[in-house]
Amino acid sequence: MTRPELVLLLAGFGHVGRRLVGLLDEMGSRLAFSWRVGAISTRRHGSALSPTGLDAARAAAHVASGGSLAGLTPAPADRVGLSLIREACRMFTDEAAGGRLVLVETTVLNVDEGEPAMSHVQAALEARAHVVTANKGPAAIAYRELAALAARMDRRFLFEGAVMDGLPVFNLVRETMPGVRVESFRGVINTTCQHVITALANGREMADAVADMQASGIAEADPSLDLDGWDAAAKAAVLANVLLDGTLTPSRVTREGVRGLTGDDVRAAARGGRRLALVASGARHPDGGAHARVRVESLSADDPLAALRETDNALYLTTDLLGEVGIVQRTSTLTQTAYALVSDLTTIGRGL
Amino acid sequence: MTRPELVLLLAGFGHVGRRLVGLLDEMGSRLAFSWRVGAISTRRHGSALSPTGLDAARAAAHVASGGSLAGLTPAPADRVGLSLIREACRMFTDEAAGGRLVLVETTVLNVDEGEPAMSHVQAALEARAHVVTANKGPAAIAYRELAALAARMDRRFLFEGAVMDGLPVFNLVRETMPGVRVESFRGVINTTCQHVITALANGREMADAVADMQASGIAEADPSLDLDGWDAAAKAAVLANVLLDGTLTPSRVTREGVRGLTGDDVRAAARGGRRLALVASGARHPDGGAHARVRVESLSADDPLAALRETDNALYLTTDLLGEVGIVQRTSTLTQTAYALVSDLTTIGRGL
Repeated sequence: MTRPELVLLLAGFGHVGRRLVGLLDEMGSRLAFSWRVGAISTRRHGSALSPTGLDAARAAAHVASGGSLAGLTPAPADRVGLSLIREACRMFTDEAAGGRLVLVETTVLNVDEGEPAMSHVQAALEARAHVVTANKGPAAIAYRELAALAARMDRRFLFEGAVMDGLPVFNLVRETMPGVRVESFRGVINTTCQHVITALANGREMADAVADMQASGIAEADPSLDLDGWDAAAKAAVLANVLLDGTLTPSRVTREGVRGLTGDDVRAAARGGRRLALVASGARHPDGGAHARVRVESLSADDPLAALRETDNALYLTTDLLGEVGIVQRTSTLTQTAYALVSDLTTIGRGL
Repeated sequence: MTRPELVLLLAGFGHVGRRLVGLLDEMGSRLAFSWRVGAISTRRHGSALSPTGLDAARAAAHVASGGSLAGLTPAPADRVGLSLIREACRMFTDEAAGGRLVLVETTVLNVDEGEPAMSHVQAALEARAHVVTANKGPAAIAYRELAALAARMDRRFLFEGAVMDGLPVFNLVRETMPGVRVESFRGVINTTCQHVITALANGREMADAVADMQASGIAEADPSLDLDGWDAAAKAAVLANVLLDGTLTPSRVTREGVRGLTGDDVRAAARGGRRLALVASGARHPDGGAHARVRVESLSADDPLAALRETDNALYLTTDLLGEVGIVQRTSTLTQTAYALVSDLTTIGRGL
């Protein structure tokens, strides 16, 4: 059986985007699809566009060492961002018509307007490209509109990596729990805050703990997104919108961060046999819609979230037919985030 | 979109089979398929066969109150078990050819030969019926042969309910973790033993704890299958065969049960901050194949399996791309086991 070839347009080429092309190379024949990169757009390193495919590994090395993509193609693309995506969609109209063109959106999170990701996603879907993204913004801010647009265009809008990296959350519910109604969720879904709370307990400074996470590519570029609970709130909004038929945005999630916590707070909880964690939760309203909140909770020892280690994430779903179901991720790496994009690309490849 | 209609042949009509037809009724339009029951075969309550479909609710009520299925159809089936399945497959050749005939196998577990389930599964696949089963036997004893037979016939052999009831295990890996290699597994996957260990700690007798589980339909009819670790060994064999490319059978799993445990043992562990649990684990051999074991382990407090409550099951998979991934089921009910069959039927329905 020949595998379908996907043409990837990479909007954003930071840690996640670069790890993705490496992982795709490593996975090789284990993939249900073959691929080539048609375009790359970055914020600070220029852009590149080629009908026959770019050398993704070379592009990743260039950008990682601070270089520009300009030298990569004979006639470098002079557009970036939205206008590059539009140009690429015009270049690959046949692939778009055949359902083989995919925008891979990995620009940084913006919790207010979701830009530039929102415009990228919209433009791609309107041009009949599929969209896969690890960016929480679009689904946190406008899930319903984007899902409707994707349905109208007969294309996929997938974002498995938005919550818990490569661990299946949305795929889990959609593919393996047919007919099951999710009533509520509760989880620890921000690794940086887990790490900060552990570091505080050990007498370290919050700033040092954040620096660790930035160095490993896990913390958001703007650490206030993690520390003030915005990242968790955006994830909670996506979970509520997708699993609970909510219409939330990150700013409509009741939100509290870890910034006010001290080592004393964490140690005092531990002396009482409890554990502090930034917990995101959400539930359906009896009359439709959903609400969600993010806050520091003091967990009793028999709370399943209290058993998590520093780098663990966990999400528990309360359902009608399966009772309470949990998924646990026991380490969080860039490979896992990149894998989320691979699993979404596989969903598209399997559909061809 | 009209839903495909599946014709179900029910081999076994105990707690699980009867709950299945109730659940299918309750789920109604949430199902991706419609259905009718073409045949029911029981060990002690006769059998029934009808080309136009049996009244499954009435059949369930009959059997639950100790009656026979004989009165259910004008010309009652005089065959049972394997010969009834063969007769039904001849009756529904059109449905079999169209991929809409499904054997639903829920007879009791036999860990030696896997009979009668093994013959039922084989006969159904040979007649081009799909097979869904909550019975661990066939996949524990002859996964490779049955999967090959199913592939040859272009039919599905699905057994999501064999491990952790309705919680996706095999679907999780197959549908949501494409290209990921599972290296090993470790879990608490026998609810009856969890319940027994908790009851012992509380000063109760093992026999009373087993009686609880039998009353709720969770324990195997023959409690030694649970207490001697056979149920967990069969599940471990299925996990090893499917996820680790093993060729195990239940008797080739290194096995220890809970029968020798006393309340003193459990309480002594608790005093040391530890917890006893029947743990199943397995790993790939470096040179191909896999091994698995079931034994009572004394878990330290930071072991994720130590956080489980009495009715919880959990399974952790070690993978190449996603690190360690856990799934947790925080209650085990008949509905969940029946739902496993529904999810497998949905996989078949979606493929039509």
